[in-house]
Amino acid sequence: MRILILGGDGYLGWPQALYLSAQGHDITIFDNLSRRLFDLERGFNSLTPLQTLHERIATWQTISGRQIHFRIGDVMDYEALAATFQAVQPDAVVHFAEQRSAPYSMIDRKHAVFTQTNNVVGTLNVLYALKEFAPTCHLVKLGTMGEYGTPNIDIEEGFIEIHHKGRSDILPFPKQPNSFYHLSKVHDSHNIMFCCNIWGLRATDLNQGIVYGFETEETALDPRLATRFDYDQIYGTALNRFCVQAVAGSPLTVYGTGQQTRGYINLMDTIRCIELAILSPAKEGEYRVFNQMTEQFSLLELAEKVIEQSSHLGLEAQIKYFANPRVEKEQHYYNATHTRLLELGLEPHLLTEDVIASMLTFAIAQRNAINPQVILPTVNWRAAQNTVTSHEPKLPQ
Amino acid sequence: MRILILGGDGYLGWPQALYLSAQGHDITIFDNLSRRLFDLERGFNSLTPLQTLHERIATWQTISGRQIHFRIGDVMDYEALAATFQAVQPDAVVHFAEQRSAPYSMIDRKHAVFTQTNNVVGTLNVLYALKEFAPTCHLVKLGTMGEYGTPNIDIEEGFIEIHHKGRSDILPFPKQPNSFYHLSKVHDSHNIMFCCNIWGLRATDLNQGIVYGFETEETALDPRLATRFDYDQIYGTALNRFCVQAVAGSPLTVYGTGQQTRGYINLMDTIRCIELAILSPAKEGEYRVFNQMTEQFSLLELAEKVIEQSSHLGLEAQIKYFANPRVEKEQHYYNATHTRLLELGLEPHLLTEDVIASMLTFAIAQRNAINPQVILPTVNWRAAQNTVTSHEPKLPQ
Repeated sequence: MRILILGGDGYLGWPQALYLSAQGHDITIFDNLSRRLFDLERGFNSLTPLQTLHERIATWQTISGRQIHFRIGDVMDYEALAATFQAVQPDAVVHFAEQRSAPYSMIDRKHAVFTQTNNVVGTLNVLYALKEFAPTCHLVKLGTMGEYGTPNIDIEEGFIEIHHKGRSDILPFPKQPNSFYHLSKVHDSHNIMFCCNIWGLRATDLNQGIVYGFETEETALDPRLATRFDYDQIYGTALNRFCVQAVAGSPLTVYGTGQQTRGYINLMDTIRCIELAILSPAKEGEYRVFNQMTEQFSLLELAEKVIEQSSHLGLEAQIKYFANPRVEKEQHYYNATHTRLLELGLEPHLLTEDVIASMLTFAIAQRNAINPQVILPTVNWRAAQNTVTSHEPKLPQ
Repeated sequence: MRILILGGDGYLGWPQALYLSAQGHDITIFDNLSRRLFDLERGFNSLTPLQTLHERIATWQTISGRQIHFRIGDVMDYEALAATFQAVQPDAVVHFAEQRSAPYSMIDRKHAVFTQTNNVVGTLNVLYALKEFAPTCHLVKLGTMGEYGTPNIDIEEGFIEIHHKGRSDILPFPKQPNSFYHLSKVHDSHNIMFCCNIWGLRATDLNQGIVYGFETEETALDPRLATRFDYDQIYGTALNRFCVQAVAGSPLTVYGTGQQTRGYINLMDTIRCIELAILSPAKEGEYRVFNQMTEQFSLLELAEKVIEQSSHLGLEAQIKYFANPRVEKEQHYYNATHTRLLELGLEPHLLTEDVIASMLTFAIAQRNAINPQVILPTVNWRAAQNTVTSHEPKLPQ
C-alpha cells in the first residue's frame, strides 16, 4: 500500500515509518521537523542520540534495501500538503503531525493558541486534501485517551448508548479534556466525524493511551535508526521520566496524590495498532474510534514499579510528591474499554519487569547525557504566572 | 453594571447594547465591523437601512441622553482586546464577536478555516483576557442549539445524567454539530468549560435557537436605530427569508422535505435572556448552559405560517422544494428542554400571527430594496464544488 505519514520524523512517526516499510509498504514521510526545533528552542535533548531525517533514511536504505520517501513540509501549508497528496496518491494517511504536549499548550496564551490553531487547522487541511485529492484514502488519526477525561462511568470506544426519558440513541462519548492540547484533539474528533458524514471520507480516530518505550524491532537494528526518548517536563511522559530520574539519582516526581489513573501502551503496540487499523480500513463515510491502550495504571503504581526494578540494578530511587501543577481529579474512577484493536489481532506487549529493566538499563548507559534540570515541572495549569520562558514557536513553512 | 459587548454592531449585538443601555447599564461596544464588510464583499444588503456605528450611537445619545462607548477592534487582536478589558473593567462581557453563518463556513476550505480560527482563537483570547484582567467578570457567550444536532433523545441544557453499566455521572451533553460554524461553537464550549475549571472563571453558554424578528422597543424609537434584517442565503435565517420571498413573489425555498425541526426565539426574547443571565451570574468556577429558545418548528410549519399570513395581506406565496444543500436528517425526533431561562423570569414572545404579519408588512414597505438574486442557495455541504466565489475575508486589524 502507499502510505503517507504526516509527522513521520517524530517519536512515534519514525518507528511507524520503519515498521510499515519493513512490511513492504511504500512509505512517504511529510514532516516540518518542528519537534526538533522545539528541542533547540528549549535546550532539551532526547536521551537517544538522534540522526537527521536524511541520515535516518539513508541508514534504513543501507540496512533494509528499502526506500522511504520524504518531503519537508507543514500541514498548515495547504499547497504543500495538497501537492503531496496529489503526488503520492496514498491508500492510507497516518496523521501524527500535531503539537502533542499538554504542558506545552499550557505555558501561556501564545502556546495555547499555537497548539489549537496548528492542530485544528492542520487537520482541517488534511480533511480538505482528502476530499479534493484522495477521497477513498483512509485517514488514521492520532487522538488521545485524554479526550474522555475521568468520568465516573466506564469509558467506551468513541460512542455510548444512552437511555434517557424512555428513548435511546448511540451518541459520541462526552468529552472532558484537561488541557488546551487535549481540547485540540477533541476539536479534531468533532471535525473529522463531520467530514466523514458529509463527504463520505473514511477515518479511524485512535484514542491513544500514554506511550512508553523507546525501541522497536527496526530501530534496534542500528543506533542511527533510534527514535526519541524524551524525559523533560514538557515532552517526557511519566514512565520514561521516572526511569531517567531513578538513574540520575533524582526523586521520582509524582504530582499530587499520584492516584491519577490513565491508559498506557507500549511503543511496539502503538505501531502494530496503526498497522491493524490500516489493514482493516474504515468504510466509506465511516468515522470509527478505537481506544489504543493495553493497560491502566496510577502514577504511583508506575513509580513503585520503577523503584522495584531500580533496586535490582543497585539504584536507590525514591518518590517525591509535588504539588500538582495540573488541575485534575486525583481520586477518581477509571475503567476504559479497549477491545476493538484486540479483536483486530493486537497481541499486547504488557509493562513487565523486563520492559522497565530494559528502560533503566538504557538510561544507565546514557547516564552522562541526562540533564536533570529539564525534568522538574514549571508549567502550572492554574492562573498563576508560569515560569517557562514564553515565546512564539517559529516553524518552517 | 459595566458591560462590554463584543460584536455590539451586529444583528443581535446592537439591539442588545441599546436595551442594556436603556436599563441604565454602562455599555462599551467592541466590534471590528466585519459583518458590514462581508455585505460589501458579497453585494448583500440588510432590508432595514443601516446607519454607521457612529451615527447609531449619536442618535441614541440624542434620543435617550445615554452614552454608549465603543472601540473598533478585533477579538483576534489580543493587545486591543486586553487594553479594552483593562480600561473598561467590565462586570459582564457578552460575546457575539464570531462568524455566525453556517453556509458561510461551508463555502470552501478558506472559509472553514477562517470561521474556526476566528471563533476559536477569538474566544481563547477572551478567556485569557478575563483571566489576566477581569477574573471575576461574568462571560455570557453566544452558542447555538445546533451544537446538539438532532439526537434521538431529549436535548437537555448542556449536561445529561448518564446511567451506564451500574454507574452514573452528569456529563456534557454529546455534540453532533452540522457545519464548520456549528463545530466552532462546540470547540468554544469545551474551551470555556475547561477555563472555568482551571482558572475559576464564571461563564454562561447560551445555546441559542434561530432568531427571528427585526425590531425591539429601542430600535423602534427611530429608523436610524434599526438593526439588520438579513434575507440572503448566507446570513438570512429561515423565517426572515420566507417573509421576504413571499413579498418578492418568489417561492419559499424549503430545503429537502422541510421536516427539519429546530428551536426558535424572538429577537426581543434574546436580548431579555441575556439580561437575565447577566443579572443572575454564574458562580466563580461555574460553567453553565442555558438553551435559549422558546418554541420549536419544522421548516414546513414556518413556511405554512408565512403563507397563511401572506394571504391575509393579498400575497399569493407558494412553497418550492429544493434539493437539500445541507447534509442533515430530514426526519428526526426533536425535543429540547428550555426551562432555565423561564425560571429566571423570561416571558416569551411567541411566534404569533401578529408577529409574522408585522414582518410581512415591513417587508412590503421595503419591497423595492429586495434583491431576489441573493436568496437562492448556492453553498452545498457535499463534496461537489460550490459556486459561490471564494476568497479570503480581509478583516480590519
